[in-house]
Amino acid sequence: MSKTQYVVLGGGLVGGFIARTLAVGADCRVTLVDRDTAVLESAARRAPLATSAGDLADAGVLRKCIEEADVAVSAVPGRLGFATLRAVLEAGKPCVDIAFCPEDARALDALAQQRGVRAVVDCGVMPGLGGMLAMDLARRLDEHWSLRILVGGLPVERRWPFEYKAPFSPSDVIEEYVRPARLRVGGRTVQRPALSGVEHVDVPGVGTLEAFNTDGLRTLLEHLPFPDMTEMTLRYPGHAEKVLLLRELGFFSQEPLDVGGARVRPLDLTSRLLFDDWRLMPGMREFTVLIVEANGLASGAAKRLRYFMLDYTDPATGDFSMARTTGWPAVLVARLLAAGALHVFPPGVIAPEKLASDADVLQQILAGLKQAGIELTYEEREA
Amino acid sequence: MSKTQYVVLGGGLVGGFIARTLAVGADCRVTLVDRDTAVLESAARRAPLATSAGDLADAGVLRKCIEEADVAVSAVPGRLGFATLRAVLEAGKPCVDIAFCPEDARALDALAQQRGVRAVVDCGVMPGLGGMLAMDLARRLDEHWSLRILVGGLPVERRWPFEYKAPFSPSDVIEEYVRPARLRVGGRTVQRPALSGVEHVDVPGVGTLEAFNTDGLRTLLEHLPFPDMTEMTLRYPGHAEKVLLLRELGFFSQEPLDVGGARVRPLDLTSRLLFDDWRLMPGMREFTVLIVEANGLASGAAKRLRYFMLDYTDPATGDFSMARTTGWPAVLVARLLAAGALHVFPPGVIAPEKLASDADVLQQILAGLKQAGIELTYEEREA
Repeated sequence: MSKTQYVVLGGGLVGGFIARTLAVGADCRVTLVDRDTAVLESAARRAPLATSAGDLADAGVLRKCIEEADVAVSAVPGRLGFATLRAVLEAGKPCVDIAFCPEDARALDALAQQRGVRAVVDCGVMPGLGGMLAMDLARRLDEHWSLRILVGGLPVERRWPFEYKAPFSPSDVIEEYVRPARLRVGGRTVQRPALSGVEHVDVPGVGTLEAFNTDGLRTLLEHLPFPDMTEMTLRYPGHAEKVLLLRELGFFSQEPLDVGGARVRPLDLTSRLLFDDWRLMPGMREFTVLIVEANGLASGAAKRLRYFMLDYTDPATGDFSMARTTGWPAVLVARLLAAGALHVFPPGVIAPEKLASDADVLQQILAGLKQAGIELTYEEREA
Repeated sequence: MSKTQYVVLGGGLVGGFIARTLAVGADCRVTLVDRDTAVLESAARRAPLATSAGDLADAGVLRKCIEEADVAVSAVPGRLGFATLRAVLEAGKPCVDIAFCPEDARALDALAQQRGVRAVVDCGVMPGLGGMLAMDLARRLDEHWSLRILVGGLPVERRWPFEYKAPFSPSDVIEEYVRPARLRVGGRTVQRPALSGVEHVDVPGVGTLEAFNTDGLRTLLEHLPFPDMTEMTLRYPGHAEKVLLLRELGFFSQEPLDVGGARVRPLDLTSRLLFDDWRLMPGMREFTVLIVEANGLASGAAKRLRYFMLDYTDPATGDFSMARTTGWPAVLVARLLAAGALHVFPPGVIAPEKLASDADVLQQILAGLKQAGIELTYEEREA
C-alpha cells in the first residue's frame, strides 16, 4: 500500500502544528497549503513536509490542492470553513475539520453520504475532545442527570486588564462573547446571554478561575441524553466583567456609526485596539484546562464522573497547549480515517462525540493523546 | 444709579442657571446669549430675562453681545473660553469666567490691567469655591503642612458600569482622566498620571467613595503655601479601574487609526458610545461633594482644618447640584463685581482663591452660598 497523502488546508497556529505532527509519523506524506509563504517555510524547516502557496479562498486553488489528498484536514479561518468542507466532500475525500465554521456543517451530510466519505467536524479540544469525553461519561451512566463542560486556554503570566491571550484574532474571541449560549435546562434547550452565569471554579494546579456560559455545546445538545447541560468558558476572575463593560457600552457592535465624518463599526476599532493586548506571542507560556463532569446513576448509585485535563506549552518545542490540545484530536482522527478505522461509522458528516460511542475508537484516541503527553485523569465518586 | 446689565454668554446647564439666578435678583437686567433657541426659550419661561440668539464662536456676534454688558459671565464651552475672555477684556468689561479653558487665562492679565477691569476666572465649585476655602484654611494656620481637596458630582442612582453622570460631554470628562495631575510633594510640583493614587474615602451621608489624582490644583500650586497639596476627584468605587481599562487599551487616543478603510480617532467613537451612558438627564437626582482639608500648626498646636459640602439636586426646582454649586460662586462674584466690592483687588485676571485672601469678600460669598441653601460645615480638630 502506498503512503497516505495528507493535505492540510491552512497553516495557522493549529494547522501548522497538525501538518508538522502528521509529517513526523510513519507511512505518510504531508502537504501544507497557505497563502503566507513565511508560514510555509517555517513549517518546512521544522518537519519533512511539502508546501504549496495558494489562497484557499480561491475555489480553483482549493480544488487543485484537494485533488492529491487521501485525507484532508481543514484548518482554514471559520468564515472559509463551510465552503472548504463542501469542496473536500465534492471531491470525495475524507476530512477532519477544525475550521469551526459558523454554519451547521451537517447541512453537508447528504453530500458526504452521496460521495461515500466521512467528515469529522469540530474536531478540536472543545468542541471536539470535550464532546467525546462527555459521550464516554454518558455511556458509563444508566440514568443521566446533568453534564457540565468547562474549557479555557490562558496565559501563565497574568497581565492587567484582561489576563488573556488568544492564538486567533480578537474578533473571533469576541464572537464567543456575543453569541447567545444555548444550554439545556430541565430537558429543554434555552438561550442565555454569553458571559452570563459567572461563578468561580477552583482548578487544581492553577487556582481560582472564573466560568461563564458560552455557546459551545452545539451538536451535543442533540446527541447527549442529559436533561441539564452547560458549557462554560474559563478565564481569570474579573475577565467577564471587563468584557461585559465593552459589550454593554456598544464596543462590540457591528452596526456602523458616524464618527467624525467616517462610518465605523465599533467592533472593528475594538478588535484593532485589543489585537496587541490579546496576542499570544512565541515564547509565552500558556495552558489549557478541560473539565467534563457528569452526574447520574450507575449501578443504582448516584455518581459524579469527571475527566480533567491540564496541559501546558511544550517547553521543548514551544508548541502552545492550545495548538496541541486542538491539533492532536484532529491528527489522531486523520490517522484513523487514513487507516479505515472509522468505517464502523456510515459515511456522512460526523460530530466528534459520535466517534466516542465506539469504545475502540475512543480508546485509540485517548491512547494517542497520552502518547502525545496530553494527560487526562478520570475520577468517579459518590455524588 | 441704573440697573446693572449682566450678559451671560452660553446657556448650558450652568450658564442657564446663572442667568436665571441673576435675573431674579434685585436691580438688574440679564441677557442670556446662546445659539440654541430652545435653551433660550426654556430659560426665559423660568425667569425674567432677555435672550439673544447667536453663535458665540463668531467674533462679531460676541463683540456685539458684550457691548451692552456692565458685567459679563462667560459660560461658553472650554474651547471657546480664552477667545471669549479676551473679547470681554478688550471691550473693557469686568467678567466672571466658568469656561475652564485649557489655556492659562493669566496670559490676559496685562490686557485686563491695561483696560482697568477685573476678570475672576475658574469661578465654579472646583476650581473656584474649593480654592477659596483652601485659601481661608491657609490663613487660619501659622505653619502649613498639607492640603487636600476632594471633589465630585455623582448620581444618586448607581448604574453599572460607571455609576456616573455628567452635565457635559464625555470627551470633557475624559480630558480630566487623561491630563497628568500636577500636585505638590515636599515643596516641589510633580506630575502623576490622572487616575493614580486610588484610595477609598468615607463621606458622611453618602458612604464609601473612591478618590484619585486629577489636575485640579491649577493656580493653587502657586498661590498656596502648603508643601504638600493634592486635588482628587471622587467617584463610586470601581470607576477608576473601568476608565483605566479603556484608557490603557487606547480607547481615549486622539491619534487617528485606519479602521475598515476609514480614519477614526478612538476618542471620537468612545465619546459617542459613552454619551448616553454618562448623560445627566432632567429628573435625575445627583449630588456634589466638596471636601477641603488642611494640616498645620495654629497657635502652636497641630491642627486639621476641614470644610465639608454635600449638596443635592434641588427638589423644588430640579436644578442639579452640579449647576448650583458651580453657578452660585459665579453669581455671587458677578454681583460683587457689579457692586464694586472687588475694588480692593487691583485690576487684572484674578484666581478665585485670591478673593478669599480678603476676609470680607469671602464672608460675603459664604453668606450668599448659605442663603442659597448650599451648606458648608467647618471643623477644626487636633491632628
